[in-house]
Amino acid sequence: MLDIFKEIREDLQVLEKELHRVIEHQDPFLNQTSSHLLDAGGKRLRPAFAFLSAKFYNYKLKSVLPLAVALELIHMASLVHDDVVDSAMTRRGVPTVKANWGNRVSMHVGDLIFAKSLIMIAQYQKTPLVAQVLSQISVKMCEGEMQQISSVYQSQQSVKDYLYRVQHKTALLIAASCQLGAVACGASKEIYLPLRRYGYQIGMAFQITDDVLDMGADQKKLGKPIGGDLRQGIITLPVVYALKKSPDRKRLIELIEKTNKTEAEVSEAIDLISKCGGIDYANQVVERYIVKAKNELNYLPNIPAKQTLLIIADFIKYRKF
Amino acid sequence: MLDIFKEIREDLQVLEKELHRVIEHQDPFLNQTSSHLLDAGGKRLRPAFAFLSAKFYNYKLKSVLPLAVALELIHMASLVHDDVVDSAMTRRGVPTVKANWGNRVSMHVGDLIFAKSLIMIAQYQKTPLVAQVLSQISVKMCEGEMQQISSVYQSQQSVKDYLYRVQHKTALLIAASCQLGAVACGASKEIYLPLRRYGYQIGMAFQITDDVLDMGADQKKLGKPIGGDLRQGIITLPVVYALKKSPDRKRLIELIEKTNKTEAEVSEAIDLISKCGGIDYANQVVERYIVKAKNELNYLPNIPAKQTLLIIADFIKYRKF
Repeated sequence: MLDIFKEIREDLQVLEKELHRVIEHQDPFLNQTSSHLLDAGGKRLRPAFAFLSAKFYNYKLKSVLPLAVALELIHMASLVHDDVVDSAMTRRGVPTVKANWGNRVSMHVGDLIFAKSLIMIAQYQKTPLVAQVLSQISVKMCEGEMQQISSVYQSQQSVKDYLYRVQHKTALLIAASCQLGAVACGASKEIYLPLRRYGYQIGMAFQITDDVLDMGADQKKLGKPIGGDLRQGIITLPVVYALKKSPDRKRLIELIEKTNKTEAEVSEAIDLISKCGGIDYANQVVERYIVKAKNELNYLPNIPAKQTLLIIADFIKYRKF
Repeated sequence: MLDIFKEIREDLQVLEKELHRVIEHQDPFLNQTSSHLLDAGGKRLRPAFAFLSAKFYNYKLKSVLPLAVALELIHMASLVHDDVVDSAMTRRGVPTVKANWGNRVSMHVGDLIFAKSLIMIAQYQKTPLVAQVLSQISVKMCEGEMQQISSVYQSQQSVKDYLYRVQHKTALLIAASCQLGAVACGASKEIYLPLRRYGYQIGMAFQITDDVLDMGADQKKLGKPIGGDLRQGIITLPVVYALKKSPDRKRLIELIEKTNKTEAEVSEAIDLISKCGGIDYANQVVERYIVKAKNELNYLPNIPAKQTLLIIADFIKYRKF
């Protein structure tokens, strides 16, 4: 991703320092637990979108930096809480906070990281849209999580149910990253609305791709074991498709609804899903979102950041990690 | 408490309706889980402090209502997260699906309730102090929780360690309730600083009293079993005192550090703590905080709300539930 982001590379380095400054804690236990995920690195996708979007109007790093930090903190907090929920033992290739310290600590570390995002957001007194949008989205992210919990291992799900989750869990925060990056620098609706829509489509494409990768990517590159969603009973787009179209539908339902799948059963499920075209279907849906995302950029001026946003859109479908 | 609050009884009724409106959800599962705690009732102490404090300057219900709702939501969210127990460390195999599901839901319900408080707070665009103070305090509340986790079953604790927890977990939010109630109605420092200090002292007194009640209050009135803190390894003020002063210090350390106490051991510990004056000592500390709280009210004009705040201060030491 580094080459794609060359335009904002220095700003991403400043972000990294600022993230460390905000997360660091004088208490060693607090410092260790809350720095843990930060040290594992990450793509910093949401801050990058905020920076790039800010380029469309009176870009000033100091105007957009607290927002960029807040976005990454919100994302990180949700990852830490996801790990409590998902019983995930590794994330970004390293053991999760939960694996090291247990559920209770994970929960409070997530709360702490999220609360720190609020201190960042409180700095935007003059652009109240920042707090308004991010508070609304925080609610929706929880609603997405709750819907996921109540739908695990349930084979009777529609594409709409799945898209609701992707929208709430991922797309809305990426949409907000693009929107608010511009808002933080004072941009008006003509600029920030197309950016928000671009972010929304990209977010949908990004998450669906993520779900497809969970079905067959190289485990080392992904940094987590494949088939994780299936094991946890999370029904993703290829599965929804296959549950309708597979000639081995009965067997697939059996496998999907089983709460403790063996390795062999996970592999068998992935084979059935792939064979009937579930993964191809999901990739086509991704393609449609990417086309829509790129179309939104037509409403924006031709600046280098626009070229970068176009490249990111195309990159999504080729990414392998 | 109803008589004490007669001045704001109608406003508390409006608050109750507003809390329901904010918490209610069209999804039945989400509605059921997030309304659960709300339906159990509560003293609504933080909203009450916000209302009473607002009386000191240009009181308007609509100015202070979103804040009052936010304060109760923040408190409720912290209660829900407090109830999440550690299931990651379960011995001899995996926790039941049901137990695990319970924790996951609790965590996300807590997150959801907290996120809804942010929507309320985002309405105070013209009084940025509201978001600034509450974001700072949210961080401190997490720090208090983390300190508590890292100090359970540890008999080597100072009064200072204990007071840090009480401050972070309880006093700061009550201080903010008093401060921001006035701030929301446009009051200046001359009004809101004494109120904040009053709230801080009251918050300390309130939590220490709570901890004392956990050692011997009537179980039915309290609505939860006594000795809960001891069982969970949480070291409260009477314990800190007794661990220094008890003639049976060695036995007490043994009991305190034991992670699975029998009923008899809990009773024995409470007896040892009480016998050496631990509970009397804690009550004296409460008394000192109450005196300080009442002194702060000298800086404020003589209005009926001031009389109510005085009565609340005196009520704390007599409460039995």
